[in-house]
Amino acid sequence: MAQHHVVIVGGGFGGLAAAQALEGAGVRITLIDRRNHHLFQPLLYQVATAALATSEIAWPVRHILRQRRDVTTLLATVTGVDVAGRAVLLDEGSRVGYDSLIIATGARHAYFGHDAWEQFAPGLKTLEDATTIRRKLLTAFEAAERETDPERRRALLTFVLIGAGPTGVEMAGAIIELARVTLRGEFRSIRPDEARVVLIEGGQRVLANFRPELSDYTLKALRHLGVEVELGAAVTEIDANGVVYGGKRLDAATIIWAAGVQASPAARWLGVEADRAGRVKVEPDLTVPGHPEIFVIGDTATITMPDGKPVPGVGDAAKQGGKHAARVIRTRLGRFGKPVPFRYNHAGDLATIGKRAAVIDFGWTQLRGWLAWWVWGLAHIYFLIDTRNRLAVAMSWLWIYLSGQRSARLITQGDAVAMAREPAKH
Amino acid sequence: MAQHHVVIVGGGFGGLAAAQALEGAGVRITLIDRRNHHLFQPLLYQVATAALATSEIAWPVRHILRQRRDVTTLLATVTGVDVAGRAVLLDEGSRVGYDSLIIATGARHAYFGHDAWEQFAPGLKTLEDATTIRRKLLTAFEAAERETDPERRRALLTFVLIGAGPTGVEMAGAIIELARVTLRGEFRSIRPDEARVVLIEGGQRVLANFRPELSDYTLKALRHLGVEVELGAAVTEIDANGVVYGGKRLDAATIIWAAGVQASPAARWLGVEADRAGRVKVEPDLTVPGHPEIFVIGDTATITMPDGKPVPGVGDAAKQGGKHAARVIRTRLGRFGKPVPFRYNHAGDLATIGKRAAVIDFGWTQLRGWLAWWVWGLAHIYFLIDTRNRLAVAMSWLWIYLSGQRSARLITQGDAVAMAREPAKH
Repeated sequence: MAQHHVVIVGGGFGGLAAAQALEGAGVRITLIDRRNHHLFQPLLYQVATAALATSEIAWPVRHILRQRRDVTTLLATVTGVDVAGRAVLLDEGSRVGYDSLIIATGARHAYFGHDAWEQFAPGLKTLEDATTIRRKLLTAFEAAERETDPERRRALLTFVLIGAGPTGVEMAGAIIELARVTLRGEFRSIRPDEARVVLIEGGQRVLANFRPELSDYTLKALRHLGVEVELGAAVTEIDANGVVYGGKRLDAATIIWAAGVQASPAARWLGVEADRAGRVKVEPDLTVPGHPEIFVIGDTATITMPDGKPVPGVGDAAKQGGKHAARVIRTRLGRFGKPVPFRYNHAGDLATIGKRAAVIDFGWTQLRGWLAWWVWGLAHIYFLIDTRNRLAVAMSWLWIYLSGQRSARLITQGDAVAMAREPAKH
Repeated sequence: MAQHHVVIVGGGFGGLAAAQALEGAGVRITLIDRRNHHLFQPLLYQVATAALATSEIAWPVRHILRQRRDVTTLLATVTGVDVAGRAVLLDEGSRVGYDSLIIATGARHAYFGHDAWEQFAPGLKTLEDATTIRRKLLTAFEAAERETDPERRRALLTFVLIGAGPTGVEMAGAIIELARVTLRGEFRSIRPDEARVVLIEGGQRVLANFRPELSDYTLKALRHLGVEVELGAAVTEIDANGVVYGGKRLDAATIIWAAGVQASPAARWLGVEADRAGRVKVEPDLTVPGHPEIFVIGDTATITMPDGKPVPGVGDAAKQGGKHAARVIRTRLGRFGKPVPFRYNHAGDLATIGKRAAVIDFGWTQLRGWLAWWVWGLAHIYFLIDTRNRLAVAMSWLWIYLSGQRSARLITQGDAVAMAREPAKH
């Protein structure tokens, strides 16, 4: 009998956890991703704010799995799934057959039907997103230094974040720090600490998933740092020069979107039902209704736990989903036991606020302030994939802590080929 | 009397050295660059071959000069010079007047009249060039893993370098190492150590600027590593699928240009005479004929020493040029002494060959092998701009030395906005 072939699409937290949990299961695994790297998304905002280098939070999937002779890693873009023929379709027309399929393709940011906003307000999901935002942030200060019109200069030094979840809160704290500490004393016409950071949230509190007392603490801590927080303010317009919220217009050269996500098109590939955010509605064992051989996990799926709470779109839920899918496949192949439904175990929520404070909600207890900040930092270093990355991130943080200086303050412009098209260069 | 205003265009080795040498001269300085970072070009090939992160060899010019209250740094693209009106013209139409002007805008790679070759054979001068080459290199192995046609696979695993100066030699050694050490055991269909690295040189020896015995040593060392070196082979054609040299066609998916450079358009800005490579012919004091207030230094200028040798296009020559221009300005302002002509002092040539060998030509003595490699490594760490970069590069090298693993194996695709235009994504 041919060996059972598991195809995993996506090398993020979910896909990687599935591959790792299938070690020794006697299956053949093909992991397909259109990126060559696994990305540690929780620290992506630090690349966007020049604190970390791209390579410090990304590591080749192929390298992580190099010792697993049962795993083949493919860099390819999946374009669809032949559900009846049990094959994944790749960009250049080839097919990869499977016995079991695990889809863990994550989510992109979404603009609630306002796709035109993307060009003015980039979101933060990939390394390219992060370097785009980094370029926008740093270029705004540079342009302000050259600007002579005071109104235009004010707009250049206004940074708007839309959405006060962990990403919005962490970005706001990091941008204030960039302006007040890192860039201090480096400009001659502007004072970077005059920069305004405005965090706009449609709901009534920041970090809505946390306990109200932590939201209150975070709101106070953000305002203490100098972040202007606007609650209950729905954004109705975004253009190249600013944003309209709550009926008011705010001129700003830099607008960052941290408000909504949309699942990858797995539901379309499979021709199955999805919720409003594009997430596939899966069975309690994370399989697609009517297709026990197809699992959808992480941000690409939606599932409600027995206590009525939805599983949140966080890395840890994706990891647990990947492990669960692996367990179900093992159980089936072993022909013993009965697959149990997925039980999500929520370890906690955490977010940093600037350089010296954080909030952590473990459910059974809460932490805030500098102790939470240290726990946050150590936990993130611990969860990084590789010793090399742990060392590099620890060193970068130590450097920032001691000197205030961020080590990745690069304005790069993407592709050399694209740049060659620019008319003026010297 | 208004303070003497020195405008420096370019924040590379030359421009930075000029700014630093003008400290305390009582002048006002404006440094203009279209990049926000000073780039340590001698290690750029290590970014292209995934050994170093971009931020490890680049540092914001503004930050380097932050404590110099006499220096204003501007991120701007120069489009020309109003020589009669003594002003530099910027992209958005504004002018920056000067009393003295120092042009240190460097060079780009050039294709000897075959500009169409650039899209197939990128050169290596900027961070974007480096990430483009890194993407091409890493993607070739990934595509080979998926390729079923053996001929096409062979082309994907063939890496061609054109030009056997230090860049070509260093890249060749690094690519062989990437294939044989870093990627070992990570693929399932291909064996990365089957990769061919072909170094094509039109002249009769590698490292033509070095003593013949060091060229001989380097040739042997390269061949020992497994690099195929083709001497006296002129390239007559480059396209998307390969290269023609010496009448032979070689199919190769990755071609890298390390053969020629072209100075930035300073001669055109100034309306003065240039040599074939676009370099401005300057007076013995590095000023433009008829314009003692304009200096052109580094790769942008051409000048012959009293011994008849041209000043080479290396970082150290640019630094010495910058210092010289500063000295001339100081002498003039001090109204004492007589400006002396520029004297270039050649410290030596050096190049690495893979991981354990290098050649150094000091003129009075030569070094080769592992000792040269250590001298090379320590010298490069010493000359890096900042303590932070020194630590980071030292750590990256130590890691590669111990583990063989390169820490920046990222395939990134430039801009998030550009990527959004791609049709297929998940």
